[in-house]
Amino acid sequence: MLQLHLAIWLGGFLLAGTSAAEQKDNPMKFGMVIHGGAGTIERREMTPENEAAHRAGLEQSLKAGYDILQRGGSSLDAVEAAIRVLEDNPLFNAGKGAVFTHEGTNELDASIMDGKTLNAGAVADLQHIRNPISLARLVMEKSPHVMLVGAGAEAFARKMGMQFVDQKYFYTDERWQSLQKEKAKSSPVPVSDKDRHGTVGAVALDKAGNLAAGTSTGGTTNKQFGRVGDSPIIGAGTYANNRTCAVSCTGDGEYFIRSVVAYDISAMMEYKGMPVQAAAQAALDKALKLGGTGGLIAIDKEGHFAMPFNTSGMYRGKVGPDGKVTVEIYK
Amino acid sequence: MLQLHLAIWLGGFLLAGTSAAEQKDNPMKFGMVIHGGAGTIERREMTPENEAAHRAGLEQSLKAGYDILQRGGSSLDAVEAAIRVLEDNPLFNAGKGAVFTHEGTNELDASIMDGKTLNAGAVADLQHIRNPISLARLVMEKSPHVMLVGAGAEAFARKMGMQFVDQKYFYTDERWQSLQKEKAKSSPVPVSDKDRHGTVGAVALDKAGNLAAGTSTGGTTNKQFGRVGDSPIIGAGTYANNRTCAVSCTGDGEYFIRSVVAYDISAMMEYKGMPVQAAAQAALDKALKLGGTGGLIAIDKEGHFAMPFNTSGMYRGKVGPDGKVTVEIYK
Repeated sequence: MLQLHLAIWLGGFLLAGTSAAEQKDNPMKFGMVIHGGAGTIERREMTPENEAAHRAGLEQSLKAGYDILQRGGSSLDAVEAAIRVLEDNPLFNAGKGAVFTHEGTNELDASIMDGKTLNAGAVADLQHIRNPISLARLVMEKSPHVMLVGAGAEAFARKMGMQFVDQKYFYTDERWQSLQKEKAKSSPVPVSDKDRHGTVGAVALDKAGNLAAGTSTGGTTNKQFGRVGDSPIIGAGTYANNRTCAVSCTGDGEYFIRSVVAYDISAMMEYKGMPVQAAAQAALDKALKLGGTGGLIAIDKEGHFAMPFNTSGMYRGKVGPDGKVTVEIYK
Repeated sequence: MLQLHLAIWLGGFLLAGTSAAEQKDNPMKFGMVIHGGAGTIERREMTPENEAAHRAGLEQSLKAGYDILQRGGSSLDAVEAAIRVLEDNPLFNAGKGAVFTHEGTNELDASIMDGKTLNAGAVADLQHIRNPISLARLVMEKSPHVMLVGAGAEAFARKMGMQFVDQKYFYTDERWQSLQKEKAKSSPVPVSDKDRHGTVGAVALDKAGNLAAGTSTGGTTNKQFGRVGDSPIIGAGTYANNRTCAVSCTGDGEYFIRSVVAYDISAMMEYKGMPVQAAAQAALDKALKLGGTGGLIAIDKEGHFAMPFNTSGMYRGKVGPDGKVTVEIYK
């Protein structure tokens, strides 16, 4: 099933028949791939309205990124803009739609990386930041650090004049009900992965040939407070390097951390000469072999991309130089 | 200078003339390498008493690890025991001797990884835990998570019955004076790296052929509170995999995160077939090329090891099957 799916999605933004060498001379190649989380997404459980709303959210995100890329903006700007749209959308588990911890709080994590400079920024355990991805970028650009967590991260945000919101901002009835359901279960591990995998992410290649990646999440429903998954871990949930690729992951973060998934794709491309699709699949397989579920998106320096996942669905989409937005949900 | 130094330190616990194939049939091979931080360590600034105290601390740590390995204990137990000794020693920037944040608090980070199972545990932003490395191990073994930070991590520690200490426990006059000196400077970046690089770490190979790695730190003097460096980041500051090697890093954490140093060594060994020494040097060089300073220790599945660093000194030591403890400080 997964292979069939991949056969459809593999490829790139290149026109058929265009060789890599020709592409290298084409300054117009650029594109973006996004995800809104992988998990149990069954057609039969999705109302037409709900599905349309998710599709519209993904399209809006892709358009925000495309607008920037199309006019010659940076992949970094495109990634941040696309993720902000998803963070502001209550349907996705990041920003506004973040899931609840066991204690009923919301704790948000995000990271971003610039493939040109290998600069990176990451934040975790935020409680009052509307757009964690933008704080991650400020950490990257305006602090001497890569990662800030908790109250220290929010103190830095305040110094930067970022928008603060009350915890109430993150309340959505659906996520609250999910927490109640999880807490009512005897098992501490969520049975459904619906609310575990809502992480959002974006990877982009801009006209200048620069790659960038970003990831943002509310974590997992019913998580122990203070838990940090792979999303804010550079090398695990997010990685970008102009020499190889840009990657954003979604899934059981613990397995993705232990497998260093995002950097593993880059390493297999750099050290073994593997194409992005094969490297993405191999890295994901290794993480999943440890026991997790999830997916990822990756794009290489020539616009080839991959979106493998081993769940029943992954909210995902892409846009290339022609501006045509494509969105998919199911396998 | 570094090359000369490496020529002395490279090699392994193997006897000269023993081939790798013969070693594979020798169930007695085992060993441990530790570090107590890399930085500006000048002979002329070190009193004989101070140097002797550092050497004694490193020897005590190695002996704690060796005792476990020698009687057939696990590399994981040895790594934890060796690091606890360094955490309890006020001379090293971890546990008791942790440096101060800009706000005058102490925030401790640690991580540990089991090369056999790829299980991992990490903690960051701790304020009241005497032995962060042991909490990292509990996160690995007793929680469904890999990484816990801040109050959430301490709540988990309380549930596990861990020893709590008051912040006063971490007060040492030397570290407090370092903070005052840093705060008096106009530059926000410490001029000396003496108090930046005190991180401690251990890597071990046990008689069963299992690798493990661990790292523990108080971070950097005068750091923004909430700052997390590479020490608790699996893949950056710590990594272990029985297929390749076990690694612990010390240095400018931000550069080590961006370079995913620890996993990069494993990747170069696995994907390019590089020996641990060459891979360790190459990974460190990449991180340092971005602008940082520091060092690392690595050991492979056959007992070969490397301890490259680009500072004037790195507290370090090793012990092999013969129980002979060797400790070095300067280049």
